[in-house]
Amino acid sequence: MTPDWIAVDWGSSNLRAWAMDADSRPRAETSAPTGASTLAPGAFEAALLAAIGPWLGDRKSTRPTDVIVCGMAGARGAWVEAPYAAVPCPPSPASPARVATADPRLAVRILPGLSQLDPADVMRGEETQIAGLLAREPRFDGVACLPGTHTKWAHLSAGEVVSFASYMTGEIFALLATQSVLRRTVAPDGWDEAAFLAAAEEGLARPERVPARLFGLRAGALVASLDPTLARARLSGLLIGAEIAAARPYWLGRDVVLIGAPAIAGAYRGALGLAGLDARVADATAMTLAGLAAAHAAIAVRAASNGAHP
Amino acid sequence: MTPDWIAVDWGSSNLRAWAMDADSRPRAETSAPTGASTLAPGAFEAALLAAIGPWLGDRKSTRPTDVIVCGMAGARGAWVEAPYAAVPCPPSPASPARVATADPRLAVRILPGLSQLDPADVMRGEETQIAGLLAREPRFDGVACLPGTHTKWAHLSAGEVVSFASYMTGEIFALLATQSVLRRTVAPDGWDEAAFLAAAEEGLARPERVPARLFGLRAGALVASLDPTLARARLSGLLIGAEIAAARPYWLGRDVVLIGAPAIAGAYRGALGLAGLDARVADATAMTLAGLAAAHAAIAVRAASNGAHP
Repeated sequence: MTPDWIAVDWGSSNLRAWAMDADSRPRAETSAPTGASTLAPGAFEAALLAAIGPWLGDRKSTRPTDVIVCGMAGARGAWVEAPYAAVPCPPSPASPARVATADPRLAVRILPGLSQLDPADVMRGEETQIAGLLAREPRFDGVACLPGTHTKWAHLSAGEVVSFASYMTGEIFALLATQSVLRRTVAPDGWDEAAFLAAAEEGLARPERVPARLFGLRAGALVASLDPTLARARLSGLLIGAEIAAARPYWLGRDVVLIGAPAIAGAYRGALGLAGLDARVADATAMTLAGLAAAHAAIAVRAASNGAHP
Repeated sequence: MTPDWIAVDWGSSNLRAWAMDADSRPRAETSAPTGASTLAPGAFEAALLAAIGPWLGDRKSTRPTDVIVCGMAGARGAWVEAPYAAVPCPPSPASPARVATADPRLAVRILPGLSQLDPADVMRGEETQIAGLLAREPRFDGVACLPGTHTKWAHLSAGEVVSFASYMTGEIFALLATQSVLRRTVAPDGWDEAAFLAAAEEGLARPERVPARLFGLRAGALVASLDPTLARARLSGLLIGAEIAAARPYWLGRDVVLIGAPAIAGAYRGALGLAGLDARVADATAMTLAGLAAAHAAIAVRAASNGAHP
């Protein structure tokens, strides 16, 4: 397997890489627990080589392999900072950061994240999934919602990210379910869709009451034997319902595409349905690869163009 | 120091005890990290003796010393379960749980907590502080707010707790400030009253927008160099403001007494002031001791009454 180029999604907690062919189709995939938050700046190249080395072969005599990276590898204090591009702007900015490497087989570029000044917000990695959506649907005008640890809502129009907003819903859910007093009464896994939707409807209709509902999941177990699986679905529903209520200015009257893993995207889709909204779901990995491929194609175009003006 | 009786506040994470004189004034105080959550059921008596042993002397020839305990020592799975009393009811129920001890110098009783079926809620320990408030002000008609890890709001009337509601605000603040992505940008201590009040006003006026504001504390540090001390006060203000908004049915138009440590009670007092409410502050330890003293006096009255009807 000798790839045409290599796509890398380098998150905080792990790294995923794909060997891409000349038509930007993934031919092989690998992953490693060497997330950006686990590495000192000097350790990134070795971690990358450990993951993708088998795909590089001995290229010393030919051109280096393009490696296009999105995500936290470009954060300040990580490998090489790829400064944020400020919205409104296209999600795949013109100038990814070129990274010098000791290994001559590598031509690494890290894509920048996006920032917004007021309200202050940032994203790193999700902009590439948004770029993938726009690569597939260049005329899309609406909202991308990317559920995850820090869910992002982005207003897209005319090929640009106009504005965006982040919610800590996924992280707060995890903290409450595993670190708080609720850990005793919220199941570590399992799901109940009806309980989720009932709680999401409550969170959506009365988000200001959600803080009054959380301790009740513990108390419900003590005084009314609330089932732990129901408690888990209910906690998720309350938090996601409240998030969707807060994000109303984003989705109201708009075309919404959810970009995420199937389970969490399905949960958001169900909750948005309670508000009368029929959101589409796009696969997160497919969008990441489409965004990285678009960035790679733009680099190739610029290289050819530079070659024409020596 | 030979106390007339001993008062114990046995929380999840530590134990506090006071040697009380015949007029129920504290004459000595001790504390230990042997909280109820750190002990197996069989370890409570030894932990108690380790803390209060020096006050017991050699009483084998005289009557045992009354030890009145409130808090998590009475939870299911702790020392001896003191089942919840269901509201509406007085905060100091008639029958504390008598605990059998191997040491004949001890006459231990654990005060029950309170429960509410709908909405499901529970408290253990705070009911004794409420009993202390009512012992001091028997005709109090209004609301007690007890800020802490799990803040309680209780509607009191005619000597009873009519209803109550718990908020996980303190625990959520601690989790976000120390375990979430915000830990990088929220100072571990320090305070800014103006930033707190501005954020509390925002949380109070637009509680449904608070989920949209939390990640901004991290982003604000990245794109606008938000000061960590301001971020800390702002996080507290957003969460407390949202809690006070949710608790509006409790405090609106009512007399409110805050029972808590000075710093957190002062923060709540400031935030309630934004809503035009002038809350009083009562010292938490004084209320605990007044509640335990009232329970001890009631036991003494019953003992004398039983003696009169042999």
